[in-house]
Amino acid sequence: MNTSPALTLTAAEQLTAIEAIKSLFAARLHCLDLKEWEKYGDFHTEDVVSDSWVDLPDGAAPEVTGQVVGRVNLVAAIRLALGAATHITTVHHGHTPQIELLSDSTARGVWAMEDLLWWTHHGREEHFHGFGHYREEYRKVDGRWLIGRRILTRLRVDHTPDYFSYLSVSS
Amino acid sequence: MNTSPALTLTAAEQLTAIEAIKSLFAARLHCLDLKEWEKYGDFHTEDVVSDSWVDLPDGAAPEVTGQVVGRVNLVAAIRLALGAATHITTVHHGHTPQIELLSDSTARGVWAMEDLLWWTHHGREEHFHGFGHYREEYRKVDGRWLIGRRILTRLRVDHTPDYFSYLSVSS
Amino acid sequence: MNTSPALTLTAAEQLTAIEAIKSLFAARLHCLDLKEWEKYGDFHTEDVVSDSWVDLPDGAAPEVTGQVVGRVNLVAAIRLALGAATHITTVHHGHTPQIELLSDSTARGVWAMEDLLWWTHHGREEHFHGFGHYREEYRKVDGRWLIGRRILTRLRVDHTPDYFSYLSVSS
Repeated sequence: MNTSPALTLTAAEQLTAIEAIKSLFAARLHCLDLKEWEKYGDFHTEDVVSDSWVDLPDGAAPEVTGQVVGRVNLVAAIRLALGAATHITTVHHGHTPQIELLSDSTARGVWAMEDLLWWTHHGREEHFHGFGHYREEYRKVDGRWLIGRRILTRLRVDHTPDYFSYLSVSS
Repeated sequence: MNTSPALTLTAAEQLTAIEAIKSLFAARLHCLDLKEWEKYGDFHTEDVVSDSWVDLPDGAAPEVTGQVVGRVNLVAAIRLALGAATHITTVHHGHTPQIELLSDSTARGVWAMEDLLWWTHHGREEHFHGFGHYREEYRKVDGRWLIGRRILTRLRVDHTPDYFSYLSVSS
Repeated sequence: MNTSPALTLTAAEQLTAIEAIKSLFAARLHCLDLKEWEKYGDFHTEDVVSDSWVDLPDGAAPEVTGQVVGRVNLVAAIRLALGAATHITTVHHGHTPQIELLSDSTARGVWAMEDLLWWTHHGREEHFHGFGHYREEYRKVDGRWLIGRRILTRLRVDHTPDYFSYLSVSS
Protein backbone atom coordinates (compact mmCIF):
# COMPACT_ATOMS: atom_id res chain seq x y z
CA MET A 1 0.00 0.00 0.00
CA ASN A 2 0.84 3.65 -0.23
CA THR A 3 3.38 4.91 2.32
CA SER A 4 2.93 8.63 1.62
CA PRO A 5 3.44 10.81 4.73
CA ALA A 6 -0.09 12.14 4.13
CA LEU A 7 -1.41 8.65 4.81
CA THR A 8 -1.51 8.01 8.56
CA LEU A 9 -4.37 5.48 8.58
CA THR A 10 -3.75 1.99 10.00
CA ALA A 11 -4.02 -0.98 7.64
CA ALA A 12 -7.56 -1.71 8.86
CA GLU A 13 -8.54 1.94 8.40
CA GLN A 14 -7.11 1.96 4.87
CA LEU A 15 -9.07 -1.17 3.99
CA THR A 16 -12.23 0.35 5.48
CA ALA A 17 -11.71 3.42 3.28
CA ILE A 18 -11.20 1.25 0.19
CA GLU A 19 -14.37 -0.73 0.93
CA ALA A 20 -16.29 2.54 1.44
CA ILE A 21 -15.07 3.81 -1.94
CA LYS A 22 -16.09 0.58 -3.67
CA SER A 23 -19.55 0.85 -2.08
CA LEU A 24 -19.79 4.49 -3.16
CA PHE A 25 -18.99 3.54 -6.75
CA ALA A 26 -21.55 0.70 -6.58
CA ALA A 27 -24.24 2.94 -5.12
CA ARG A 28 -23.83 5.52 -7.91
CA LEU A 29 -24.33 2.92 -10.65
CA HIS A 30 -27.28 1.38 -8.78
CA CYS A 31 -28.88 4.81 -8.45
CA LEU A 32 -28.19 5.56 -12.13
CA ASP A 33 -29.84 2.39 -13.46
CA LEU A 34 -32.80 2.75 -11.10
CA LYS A 35 -33.14 6.42 -12.11
CA GLU A 36 -33.21 7.67 -8.53
CA TRP A 37 -32.19 11.16 -9.59
CA GLU A 38 -32.94 12.78 -6.23
CA LYS A 39 -30.07 10.72 -4.75
CA TYR A 40 -27.64 11.02 -7.66
CA GLY A 41 -25.95 14.25 -6.57
CA ASP A 42 -25.17 12.88 -3.09
CA PHE A 43 -22.39 10.61 -4.41
CA HIS A 44 -20.39 13.57 -5.73
CA THR A 45 -18.52 16.56 -4.34
CA GLU A 46 -20.01 19.98 -5.00
CA ASP A 47 -17.15 20.73 -7.41
CA VAL A 48 -17.19 17.37 -9.23
CA VAL A 49 -15.88 17.35 -12.81
CA SER A 50 -17.09 14.59 -15.09
CA ASP A 51 -15.78 13.79 -18.57
CA SER A 52 -17.51 11.21 -20.75
CA TRP A 53 -16.38 10.68 -24.25
CA VAL A 54 -15.92 8.04 -26.86
CA ASP A 55 -12.17 7.57 -27.04
CA LEU A 56 -11.66 4.97 -29.73
CA PRO A 57 -8.23 3.48 -30.44
CA ASP A 58 -6.06 4.52 -33.35
CA GLY A 59 -6.79 8.21 -33.02
CA ALA A 60 -10.33 7.92 -34.34
CA ALA A 61 -12.25 11.13 -33.79
CA PRO A 62 -14.33 11.19 -30.59
CA GLU A 63 -18.01 10.79 -31.41
CA VAL A 64 -19.43 12.25 -28.24
CA THR A 65 -17.64 14.75 -26.05
CA GLY A 66 -18.81 16.37 -22.91
CA GLN A 67 -17.50 17.78 -19.68
CA VAL A 68 -19.86 18.64 -16.86
CA VAL A 69 -18.67 20.77 -13.91
CA GLY A 70 -20.43 20.85 -10.56
CA ARG A 71 -22.88 18.59 -8.73
CA VAL A 72 -25.96 20.61 -9.70
CA ASN A 73 -25.05 20.54 -13.39
CA LEU A 74 -24.21 16.85 -13.24
CA VAL A 75 -27.64 15.93 -11.91
CA ALA A 76 -29.30 18.18 -14.48
CA ALA A 77 -27.27 16.59 -17.29
CA ILE A 78 -28.08 13.03 -16.25
CA ARG A 79 -31.78 13.81 -15.88
CA LEU A 80 -31.75 15.34 -19.36
CA ALA A 81 -29.89 12.41 -20.93
CA LEU A 82 -31.61 9.48 -19.21
CA GLY A 83 -34.69 10.75 -17.45
CA ALA A 84 -36.41 12.64 -20.23
CA ALA A 85 -39.59 11.89 -22.15
CA THR A 86 -37.97 9.02 -24.07
CA HIS A 87 -37.76 6.10 -21.65
CA ILE A 88 -34.24 4.70 -21.70
CA THR A 89 -33.40 1.44 -19.95
CA THR A 90 -29.77 1.49 -18.82
CA VAL A 91 -27.36 -1.08 -17.40
CA HIS A 92 -23.98 0.14 -16.08
CA HIS A 93 -21.53 -2.44 -14.75
CA GLY A 94 -18.14 -1.74 -13.13
CA HIS A 95 -15.37 -4.28 -12.68
CA THR A 96 -12.02 -4.99 -11.00
CA PRO A 97 -11.31 -1.75 -9.16
CA GLN A 98 -7.78 -0.58 -8.48
CA ILE A 99 -8.18 1.84 -5.56
CA GLU A 100 -5.17 3.81 -4.32
CA LEU A 101 -5.27 5.97 -1.20
CA LEU A 102 -3.22 9.15 -1.67
CA SER A 103 -3.78 10.54 1.83
CA ASP A 104 -6.21 9.96 4.70
CA SER A 105 -8.92 11.78 2.76
CA THR A 106 -8.03 11.47 -0.93
CA ALA A 107 -7.87 8.49 -3.27
CA ARG A 108 -8.05 7.54 -6.91
CA GLY A 109 -9.42 4.50 -8.70
CA VAL A 110 -9.66 2.78 -12.07
CA TRP A 111 -12.59 0.52 -12.98
CA ALA A 112 -13.32 -1.46 -16.12
CA MET A 113 -16.87 -0.74 -17.26
CA GLU A 114 -19.61 -1.79 -19.67
CA ASP A 115 -22.84 0.06 -20.36
CA LEU A 116 -25.95 -0.82 -22.32
CA LEU A 117 -28.84 1.46 -23.24
CA TRP A 118 -32.12 0.64 -24.97
CA TRP A 119 -34.86 3.02 -26.02
CA THR A 120 -37.56 3.43 -28.64
CA HIS A 121 -37.37 6.30 -31.11
CA HIS A 122 -39.93 6.82 -33.87
CA GLY A 123 -41.31 3.36 -33.11
CA ARG A 124 -38.02 1.54 -33.52
CA GLU A 125 -35.82 0.08 -30.78
CA GLU A 126 -32.41 1.70 -30.60
CA HIS A 127 -29.42 0.33 -28.73
CA PHE A 128 -26.07 1.50 -27.40
CA HIS A 129 -23.40 -0.84 -26.03
CA GLY A 130 -20.07 0.44 -24.78
CA PHE A 131 -16.91 -0.78 -23.06
CA GLY A 132 -14.20 1.25 -21.36
CA HIS A 133 -12.73 2.47 -18.11
CA TYR A 134 -13.73 4.91 -15.42
CA ARG A 135 -10.85 6.86 -13.88
CA GLU A 136 -12.05 8.54 -10.70
CA GLU A 137 -10.80 10.66 -7.83
CA TYR A 138 -12.34 10.49 -4.38
CA ARG A 139 -12.38 12.92 -1.46
CA LYS A 140 -13.58 12.42 2.10
CA VAL A 141 -15.90 15.29 3.03
CA ASP A 142 -17.54 15.47 6.49
CA GLY A 143 -16.73 11.81 7.10
CA ARG A 144 -18.13 10.50 3.77
CA TRP A 145 -16.18 9.48 0.66
CA LEU A 146 -17.42 11.26 -2.48
CA ILE A 147 -16.52 11.27 -6.17
CA GLY A 148 -14.72 14.48 -7.13
CA ARG A 149 -13.59 13.59 -10.66
CA ARG A 150 -14.63 11.05 -13.27
CA ILE A 151 -13.18 10.41 -16.71
CA LEU A 152 -14.74 7.79 -18.96
CA THR A 153 -12.63 6.46 -21.79
CA ARG A 154 -13.79 3.91 -24.33
CA LEU A 155 -12.33 0.73 -25.80
CA ARG A 156 -15.29 0.03 -28.06
CA VAL A 157 -18.75 1.33 -28.81
CA ASP A 158 -21.54 -0.27 -30.86
CA HIS A 159 -24.87 1.40 -31.50
CA THR A 160 -27.79 1.45 -33.87
CA PRO A 161 -27.57 4.06 -36.65
CA ASP A 162 -30.08 6.42 -35.05
CA TYR A 163 -28.08 6.88 -31.88
CA PHE A 164 -27.22 10.41 -32.96
CA SER A 165 -30.85 11.33 -33.58
CA TYR A 166 -31.59 10.44 -30.02
CA LEU A 167 -28.72 12.59 -28.78
CA SER A 168 -29.85 15.61 -30.74
CA VAL A 169 -33.33 15.21 -29.29
CA SER A 170 -32.38 14.79 -25.65
CA SER A 171 -29.60 17.30 -25.14
CA MET B 1 -19.56 1.53 8.59
CA ASN B 2 -22.55 0.56 10.67
CA THR B 3 -22.42 1.61 14.31
CA SER B 4 -25.44 -0.42 15.48
CA PRO B 5 -25.10 -1.65 19.10
CA ALA B 6 -25.59 -5.18 17.72
CA LEU B 7 -22.32 -4.78 15.85
CA THR B 8 -19.39 -5.32 18.22
CA LEU B 9 -16.83 -6.55 15.66
CA THR B 10 -13.57 -4.62 15.22
CA ALA B 11 -12.91 -2.94 11.88
CA ALA B 12 -10.71 -5.87 10.79
CA GLU B 13 -13.39 -8.37 11.85
CA GLN B 14 -16.05 -6.44 9.93
CA LEU B 15 -13.88 -6.44 6.80
CA THR B 16 -13.21 -10.16 7.23
CA ALA B 17 -16.97 -10.76 7.40
CA ILE B 18 -17.57 -8.65 4.27
CA GLU B 19 -14.88 -10.56 2.37
CA ALA B 20 -16.41 -13.87 3.51
CA ILE B 21 -19.82 -12.76 2.25
CA LYS B 22 -18.39 -11.73 -1.12
CA SER B 23 -16.67 -15.12 -1.41
CA LEU B 24 -19.92 -16.88 -0.47
CA PHE B 25 -21.77 -15.01 -3.21
CA ALA B 26 -19.00 -15.85 -5.69
CA ALA B 27 -18.96 -19.53 -4.72
CA ARG B 28 -22.73 -19.86 -5.26
CA LEU B 29 -22.52 -18.47 -8.81
CA HIS B 30 -19.47 -20.62 -9.57
CA CYS B 31 -21.31 -23.72 -8.34
CA LEU B 32 -24.42 -22.76 -10.33
CA ASP B 33 -22.61 -22.36 -13.66
CA LEU B 34 -20.56 -25.54 -13.11
CA LYS B 35 -23.78 -27.38 -12.16
CA GLU B 36 -22.30 -28.77 -8.94
CA TRP B 37 -25.78 -29.35 -7.49
CA GLU B 38 -24.55 -31.44 -4.56
CA LYS B 39 -22.83 -28.31 -3.18
CA TYR B 40 -25.55 -25.79 -4.04
CA GLY B 41 -27.56 -26.14 -0.85
CA ASP B 42 -24.53 -25.50 1.36
CA PHE B 43 -24.45 -21.78 0.53
CA HIS B 44 -27.94 -21.24 1.96
CA THR B 45 -29.64 -21.34 5.35
CA GLU B 46 -32.16 -24.14 5.92
CA ASP B 47 -34.98 -21.60 5.83
CA VAL B 48 -33.74 -19.64 2.79
CA VAL B 49 -36.38 -17.79 0.76
CA SER B 50 -35.58 -17.03 -2.87
CA ASP B 51 -37.60 -14.83 -5.23
CA SER B 52 -36.72 -14.64 -8.90
CA TRP B 53 -38.92 -12.78 -11.24
CA VAL B 54 -38.85 -10.57 -14.25
CA ASP B 55 -39.61 -7.12 -12.91
CA LEU B 56 -39.63 -4.86 -15.93
CA PRO B 57 -39.85 -1.09 -15.58
CA ASP B 58 -43.06 0.89 -16.12
CA GLY B 59 -45.29 -1.60 -14.38
CA ALA B 60 -45.07 -4.20 -17.14
CA ALA B 61 -46.52 -7.49 -15.97
CA PRO B 62 -43.92 -9.95 -14.62
CA GLU B 63 -43.27 -12.71 -17.12
CA VAL B 64 -41.90 -15.28 -14.73
CA THR B 65 -42.72 -15.39 -11.05
CA GLY B 66 -41.51 -17.80 -8.47
CA GLN B 67 -40.74 -18.00 -4.81
CA VAL B 68 -38.94 -20.99 -3.37
CA VAL B 69 -38.84 -21.60 0.40
CA GLY B 70 -36.28 -23.82 2.08
CA ARG B 71 -32.86 -25.18 1.16
CA VAL B 72 -34.15 -28.59 0.06
CA ASN B 73 -36.74 -27.05 -2.25
CA LEU B 74 -34.21 -24.57 -3.63
CA VAL B 75 -31.82 -27.33 -4.68
CA ALA B 76 -34.69 -29.31 -6.20
CA ALA B 77 -35.89 -26.23 -8.13
CA ILE B 78 -32.48 -25.41 -9.53
CA ARG B 79 -31.87 -29.02 -10.56
CA LEU B 80 -35.23 -29.03 -12.32
CA ALA B 81 -34.63 -25.72 -14.09
CA LEU B 82 -30.99 -26.10 -15.10
CA GLY B 83 -29.96 -29.70 -14.60
CA ALA B 84 -32.70 -31.52 -16.45
CA ALA B 85 -32.61 -33.49 -19.69
CA THR B 86 -32.23 -30.34 -21.80
CA HIS B 87 -28.61 -29.24 -21.42
CA ILE B 88 -28.51 -25.55 -20.55
CA THR B 89 -25.25 -23.62 -20.52
CA THR B 90 -25.46 -20.78 -18.00
CA VAL B 91 -23.31 -17.79 -17.16
CA HIS B 92 -24.15 -15.76 -14.03
CA HIS B 93 -22.07 -12.69 -13.24
CA GLY B 94 -22.36 -10.46 -10.15
CA HIS B 95 -20.94 -6.96 -9.84
CA THR B 96 -20.17 -4.08 -7.43
CA PRO B 97 -21.47 -5.42 -4.12
CA GLN B 98 -22.75 -3.09 -1.43
CA ILE B 99 -22.48 -5.19 1.74
CA GLU B 100 -23.85 -3.82 5.03
CA LEU B 101 -23.34 -5.59 8.36
CA LEU B 102 -26.43 -5.26 10.55
CA SER B 103 -25.01 -7.13 13.55
CA ASP B 104 -22.13 -9.49 14.26
CA SER B 105 -24.02 -12.29 12.51
CA THR B 106 -26.42 -10.64 10.06
CA ALA B 107 -25.84 -8.60 6.92
CA ARG B 108 -27.48 -7.56 3.69
CA GLY B 109 -26.13 -6.90 0.24
CA VAL B 110 -27.04 -5.60 -3.21
CA TRP B 111 -25.28 -6.83 -6.36
CA ALA B 112 -25.71 -5.86 -9.99
CA MET B 113 -26.10 -9.01 -12.11
CA GLU B 114 -26.21 -10.37 -15.65
CA ASP B 115 -27.19 -13.86 -16.68
CA LEU B 116 -27.04 -15.70 -19.99
CA LEU B 117 -28.56 -19.08 -20.84
CA TRP B 118 -28.27 -21.13 -24.02
CA TRP B 119 -29.97 -24.41 -24.84
CA THR B 120 -31.29 -26.37 -27.79
CA HIS B 121 -34.99 -27.11 -28.05
CA HIS B 122 -36.52 -29.00 -30.98
CA GLY B 123 -33.20 -28.64 -32.81
CA ARG B 124 -33.00 -24.88 -32.50
CA GLU B 125 -30.73 -22.85 -30.24
CA GLU B 126 -32.62 -20.76 -27.73
CA HIS B 127 -31.17 -17.94 -25.68
CA PHE B 128 -31.99 -15.91 -22.58
CA HIS B 129 -30.10 -12.77 -21.53
CA GLY B 130 -31.03 -10.80 -18.44
CA PHE B 131 -29.82 -7.86 -16.37
CA GLY B 132 -30.85 -6.86 -12.87
CA HIS B 133 -29.97 -6.85 -9.20
CA TYR B 134 -29.73 -9.43 -6.45
CA ARG B 135 -30.84 -8.21 -3.02
CA GLU B 136 -29.66 -10.69 -0.40
CA GLU B 137 -29.64 -11.22 3.35
CA TYR B 138 -26.88 -13.16 5.08
CA ARG B 139 -26.70 -14.95 8.44
CA LYS B 140 -23.72 -16.45 10.23
CA VAL B 141 -24.59 -19.99 11.29
CA ASP B 142 -22.07 -22.17 13.17
CA GLY B 143 -19.23 -19.84 12.12
CA ARG B 144 -20.13 -19.71 8.39
CA TRP B 145 -21.90 -16.94 6.50
CA LEU B 146 -24.91 -18.23 4.53
CA ILE B 147 -27.55 -16.73 2.25
CA GLY B 148 -30.93 -16.55 3.99
CA ARG B 149 -32.86 -14.44 1.49
CA ARG B 150 -32.49 -13.59 -2.19
CA ILE B 151 -34.64 -11.36 -4.36
CA LEU B 152 -33.84 -10.96 -8.05
CA THR B 153 -35.27 -7.94 -9.82
CA ARG B 154 -34.80 -7.19 -13.50
CA LEU B 155 -33.84 -4.14 -15.51
CA ARG B 156 -34.05 -5.86 -18.88
CA VAL B 157 -34.62 -9.31 -20.35
CA ASP B 158 -34.10 -10.49 -23.93
CA HIS B 159 -34.90 -14.00 -25.08
CA THR B 160 -35.74 -16.03 -28.14
CA PRO B 161 -39.47 -16.55 -28.74
CA ASP B 162 -39.48 -20.16 -27.54
CA TYR B 163 -38.22 -19.32 -24.09
CA PHE B 164 -41.67 -20.10 -22.68
CA SER B 165 -41.81 -23.49 -24.36
CA TYR B 166 -38.68 -24.42 -22.52
CA LEU B 167 -40.13 -23.27 -19.22
CA SER B 168 -43.27 -25.31 -19.65
CA VAL B 169 -41.17 -28.36 -20.42
CA SER B 170 -38.73 -28.15 -17.57
CA SER B 171 -40.88 -27.09 -14.63
CA MET C 1 -10.20 -17.61 6.74
CA ASN C 2 -7.40 -20.11 6.40
CA THR C 3 -5.82 -21.26 9.66
CA SER C 4 -2.83 -23.06 8.11
CA PRO C 5 0.31 -22.94 10.29
CA ALA C 6 2.07 -21.36 7.30
CA LEU C 7 -0.26 -18.37 7.62
CA THR C 8 0.92 -16.09 10.43
CA LEU C 9 -0.50 -12.81 9.11
CA THR C 10 -2.99 -10.86 11.24
CA ALA C 11 -6.53 -10.44 9.94
CA ALA C 12 -5.70 -6.93 8.68
CA GLU C 13 -2.55 -8.22 6.96
CA GLN C 14 -4.51 -11.04 5.31
CA LEU C 15 -7.09 -8.56 4.01
CA THR C 16 -4.31 -6.30 2.74
CA ALA C 17 -2.82 -9.24 0.85
CA ILE C 18 -6.21 -10.14 -0.65
CA GLU C 19 -6.77 -6.54 -1.77
CA ALA C 20 -3.28 -6.47 -3.30
CA ILE C 21 -4.03 -9.68 -5.23
CA LYS C 22 -7.33 -8.27 -6.52
CA SER C 23 -5.51 -5.12 -7.66
CA LEU C 24 -2.84 -7.23 -9.35
CA PHE C 25 -5.49 -9.16 -11.26
CA ALA C 26 -7.20 -5.89 -12.22
CA ALA C 27 -3.94 -4.29 -13.36
CA ARG C 28 -3.12 -7.24 -15.66
CA LEU C 29 -6.47 -7.01 -17.45
CA HIS C 30 -6.19 -3.22 -17.70
CA CYS C 31 -2.71 -3.55 -19.21
CA LEU C 32 -3.93 -6.26 -21.60
CA ASP C 33 -6.84 -4.25 -23.00
CA LEU C 34 -4.71 -1.09 -23.28
CA LYS C 35 -1.97 -3.12 -24.98
CA GLU C 36 0.77 -1.86 -22.66
CA TRP C 37 2.99 -4.82 -23.48
CA GLU C 38 6.09 -3.35 -21.83
CA LYS C 39 4.31 -3.67 -18.46
CA TYR C 40 2.63 -7.03 -19.06
CA GLY C 41 5.46 -9.22 -17.81
CA ASP C 42 5.68 -7.37 -14.49
CA PHE C 43 2.47 -8.94 -13.18
CA HIS C 44 3.88 -12.46 -13.44
CA THR C 45 6.61 -14.55 -11.80
CA GLU C 46 9.60 -15.45 -13.95
CA ASP C 47 8.42 -19.08 -13.99
CA VAL C 48 4.73 -18.35 -14.67
CA VAL C 49 2.75 -21.10 -16.43
CA SER C 50 -0.37 -20.05 -18.34
CA ASP C 51 -2.96 -22.37 -19.89
CA SER C 52 -5.70 -20.98 -22.08
CA TRP C 53 -8.01 -23.30 -23.85
CA VAL C 54 -11.59 -23.71 -24.87
CA ASP C 55 -12.96 -26.27 -22.47
CA LEU C 56 -16.52 -26.78 -23.57
CA PRO C 57 -18.96 -28.85 -21.51
CA ASP C 58 -19.90 -32.44 -22.32
CA GLY C 59 -16.43 -33.50 -23.37
CA ALA C 60 -16.43 -31.51 -26.61
CA ALA C 61 -12.97 -31.38 -28.14
CA PRO C 62 -10.98 -28.26 -27.22
CA GLU C 63 -10.80 -25.86 -30.15
CA VAL C 64 -7.76 -23.93 -29.05
CA THR C 65 -5.07 -25.30 -26.79
CA GLY C 66 -1.98 -23.62 -25.55
CA GLN C 67 0.37 -23.61 -22.61
CA VAL C 68 2.99 -20.92 -22.25
CA VAL C 69 5.86 -21.30 -19.76
CA GLY C 70 7.91 -18.38 -18.45
CA ARG C 71 7.43 -14.61 -18.28
CA VAL C 72 9.46 -13.86 -21.38
CA ASN C 73 7.50 -16.35 -23.48
CA LEU C 74 4.20 -15.11 -22.08
CA VAL C 75 4.90 -11.53 -23.15
CA ALA C 76 6.03 -12.72 -26.59
CA ALA C 77 2.89 -14.84 -26.99
CA ILE C 78 0.52 -12.04 -26.04
CA ARG C 79 2.28 -9.57 -28.33
CA LEU C 80 1.98 -12.07 -31.16
CA ALA C 81 -1.69 -12.80 -30.53
CA LEU C 82 -3.00 -9.29 -29.78
CA GLY C 83 -0.34 -6.81 -30.77
CA ALA C 84 0.43 -7.90 -34.30
CA ALA C 85 -0.28 -6.25 -37.64
CA THR C 86 -4.01 -7.01 -37.40
CA HIS C 87 -5.44 -4.52 -34.91
CA ILE C 88 -7.55 -6.37 -32.36
CA THR C 89 -9.73 -4.52 -29.88
CA THR C 90 -10.07 -6.57 -26.70
CA VAL C 91 -12.21 -6.34 -23.57
CA HIS C 92 -11.42 -8.66 -20.65
CA HIS C 93 -13.61 -8.52 -17.56
CA GLY C 94 -13.12 -10.46 -14.31
CA HIS C 95 -15.78 -10.99 -11.66
CA THR C 96 -16.46 -12.19 -8.11
CA PRO C 97 -13.01 -13.35 -6.95
CA GLN C 98 -12.61 -16.10 -4.38
CA ILE C 99 -9.10 -15.49 -3.00
CA GLU C 100 -7.61 -17.97 -0.54
CA LEU C 101 -4.30 -17.37 1.25
CA LEU C 102 -2.33 -20.60 1.61
CA SER C 103 0.60 -19.09 3.50
CA ASP C 104 2.04 -15.63 4.17
CA SER C 105 3.38 -15.54 0.60
CA THR C 106 1.20 -17.89 -1.47
CA ALA C 107 -2.46 -17.75 -2.46
CA ARG C 108 -4.88 -19.00 -5.05
CA GLY C 109 -7.95 -17.48 -6.63
CA VAL C 110 -10.91 -18.19 -8.92
CA TRP C 111 -12.51 -15.46 -11.04
CA ALA C 112 -15.46 -15.56 -13.40
CA MET C 113 -14.49 -13.95 -16.71
CA GLU C 114 -15.80 -12.69 -20.03
CA ASP C 115 -13.74 -11.63 -23.03
CA LEU C 116 -14.60 -9.95 -26.30
CA LEU C 117 -12.36 -9.46 -29.32
CA TRP C 118 -13.03 -7.59 -32.56
CA TRP C 119 -10.79 -7.30 -35.59
CA THR C 120 -10.99 -6.88 -39.34
CA HIS C 121 -9.70 -9.63 -41.60
CA HIS C 122 -9.89 -9.45 -45.38
CA GLY C 123 -12.13 -6.41 -45.03
CA ARG C 124 -14.70 -8.11 -42.82
CA GLU C 125 -15.24 -7.59 -39.09
CA GLU C 126 -14.64 -10.72 -37.07
CA HIS C 127 -15.68 -11.27 -33.47
CA PHE C 128 -14.92 -13.57 -30.57
CA HIS C 129 -16.94 -13.67 -27.35
CA GLY C 130 -16.12 -16.03 -24.51
CA PHE C 131 -17.16 -16.83 -20.96
CA GLY C 132 -15.33 -18.89 -18.36
CA HIS C 133 -13.16 -18.88 -15.27
CA TYR C 134 -9.59 -17.98 -14.45
CA ARG C 135 -7.96 -20.21 -11.82
CA GLU C 136 -4.77 -18.53 -10.63
CA GLU C 137 -1.96 -19.00 -8.13
CA TYR C 138 -0.14 -16.07 -6.59
CA ARG C 139 3.28 -15.71 -4.96
CA LYS C 140 4.79 -12.82 -3.03
CA VAL C 141 8.24 -12.06 -4.45
CA ASP C 142 10.37 -9.23 -3.02
CA GLY C 143 7.32 -7.73 -1.32
CA ARG C 144 5.03 -7.81 -4.40
CA TRP C 145 2.25 -10.29 -5.19
CA LEU C 146 2.65 -11.84 -8.66
CA ILE C 147 0.75 -14.36 -10.78
CA GLY C 148 2.61 -17.69 -10.95
CA ARG C 149 -0.05 -19.83 -12.62
CA ARG C 150 -3.14 -19.21 -14.70
CA ILE C 151 -5.62 -21.67 -16.14
CA LEU C 152 -8.51 -20.43 -18.27
CA THR C 153 -11.48 -22.75 -18.69
CA ARG C 154 -14.52 -21.96 -20.79
CA LEU C 155 -18.26 -22.22 -20.28
CA ARG C 156 -19.16 -20.90 -23.72
CA VAL C 157 -17.51 -19.43 -26.79
CA ASP C 158 -19.12 -17.70 -29.79
CA HIS C 159 -17.16 -16.45 -32.76
CA THR C 160 -17.50 -15.58 -36.41
CA PRO C 161 -16.61 -18.40 -38.83
CA ASP C 162 -13.24 -16.91 -39.78
CA TYR C 163 -11.89 -16.94 -36.25
CA PHE C 164 -9.58 -19.79 -37.22
CA SER C 165 -8.18 -17.96 -40.23
CA TYR C 166 -7.09 -15.19 -37.94
CA LEU C 167 -5.39 -17.66 -35.63
CA SER C 168 -3.44 -19.26 -38.43
CA VAL C 169 -2.27 -15.86 -39.60
CA SER C 170 -1.18 -14.44 -36.27
CA SER C 171 0.54 -17.36 -34.57
